[in-house]
Amino acid sequence: MPVDQNAAIEITAFRWVPEFAQGVVRDLRVRWALEEAGLSYRVRLLGQDRPPEYLLEQPFDQVPCFSDGKVRIFESGAIVQYIGEQSETLLPTDDQGRFRAIQWTYGALNSVEPAILNLLLVDIFYAGEEWAKLRRPGAEDFVKLKLKRVSEWLGDSAWLEDRFTIGDLLMITVLRFLRHTKLVDEFPNLSDYLKRGEARPAFQRALADQLATYAANQPQLEGEAA
Amino acid sequence: MPVDQNAAIEITAFRWVPEFAQGVVRDLRVRWALEEAGLSYRVRLLGQDRPPEYLLEQPFDQVPCFSDGKVRIFESGAIVQYIGEQSETLLPTDDQGRFRAIQWTYGALNSVEPAILNLLLVDIFYAGEEWAKLRRPGAEDFVKLKLKRVSEWLGDSAWLEDRFTIGDLLMITVLRFLRHTKLVDEFPNLSDYLKRGEARPAFQRALADQLATYAANQPQLEGEAA
Repeated sequence: MPVDQNAAIEITAFRWVPEFAQGVVRDLRVRWALEEAGLSYRVRLLGQDRPPEYLLEQPFDQVPCFSDGKVRIFESGAIVQYIGEQSETLLPTDDQGRFRAIQWTYGALNSVEPAILNLLLVDIFYAGEEWAKLRRPGAEDFVKLKLKRVSEWLGDSAWLEDRFTIGDLLMITVLRFLRHTKLVDEFPNLSDYLKRGEARPAFQRALADQLATYAANQPQLEGEAA
Repeated sequence: MPVDQNAAIEITAFRWVPEFAQGVVRDLRVRWALEEAGLSYRVRLLGQDRPPEYLLEQPFDQVPCFSDGKVRIFESGAIVQYIGEQSETLLPTDDQGRFRAIQWTYGALNSVEPAILNLLLVDIFYAGEEWAKLRRPGAEDFVKLKLKRVSEWLGDSAWLEDRFTIGDLLMITVLRFLRHTKLVDEFPNLSDYLKRGEARPAFQRALADQLATYAANQPQLEGEAA
């Protein structure tokens, strides 16, 4: 279990989030990468009461941030890539293999995730608003197109390239944002791919650790989260 | 002028796009990076008639793709990073400097661009639709929040970190998507930052070459673009 409050690596995470966000907050990606790499880490927990100075660490006021005494960075994509450079389990070392994997991190975060997060806006954050109802069919169609593209690329391969990489790690965490729908199930190879990623022991440990934090910090009363 | 049809580096680009997209299509990022690095490249032009096999190169059916005989990749963020590794003008070589720059590429493409592209959906692609009218105020507010975050981070610095990097290159191309609005002008330091990036000779050459291609391939009749 690499969560160790004496570890050199520190990440930031939220102390607690509402149920719809539990299991998908972006520190999960970094926890997963650290588990794959076998690197211990400690967690600095933040609430909704985080100080304005946090913007000097993370200008978008999000989690996770990462530091290991050598590098201090934010953006889960960059952090996962940095960890990947320390573990061949995550990232090949030859230029072609390395950049094929890196390309899929941008593919996951820029070509796929925005479409999926727009459906979350419609279904969760703005559910009930008139524009959200009118927009939903188009937003869903755009998600399906993205899923179709990834599904066709994947074919009967186990991973996006010839082995598991940080590109898969990020793509799988992006696909998880659709768990409130059955859209991934419409593409059986993509559904299998998602399950294949989630079955990795490193993912399971990362998820359990994120969820354990929320369970330990569950607010007693509605609205008490801080 | 590094456009050279005998160069080892090949990128893909569109032969022609409608005016609203001219000067912001993503091959601009790669052209700019290649100009900063002093690397010659050739362009393979694609139209709306591109073959289904193109999906084997670029699963999302977009431009640019990149190959140099050693590496074949897509996703402008990854391509710019790959070029950055070949030029200290674009990317520091120490771990902290390198990953601070890389973090900003993900920041530009994942924390800022999706908000801006959503405003483009509302203003350009779905202009006139009822949901777009209802959504516009919220979409604009979200863009303003992102711009405020970047503006506050930037303060009176010239660049996002202590020197120009691929992070700035991508952030500046992302901010350019707002040129149909005056939103960037509401943040004077961000407006100066955008102008500072666009004033770089390498950017100017890249932009001129992209626009020259469209001018040379302007369809004679509306709807004739292919």
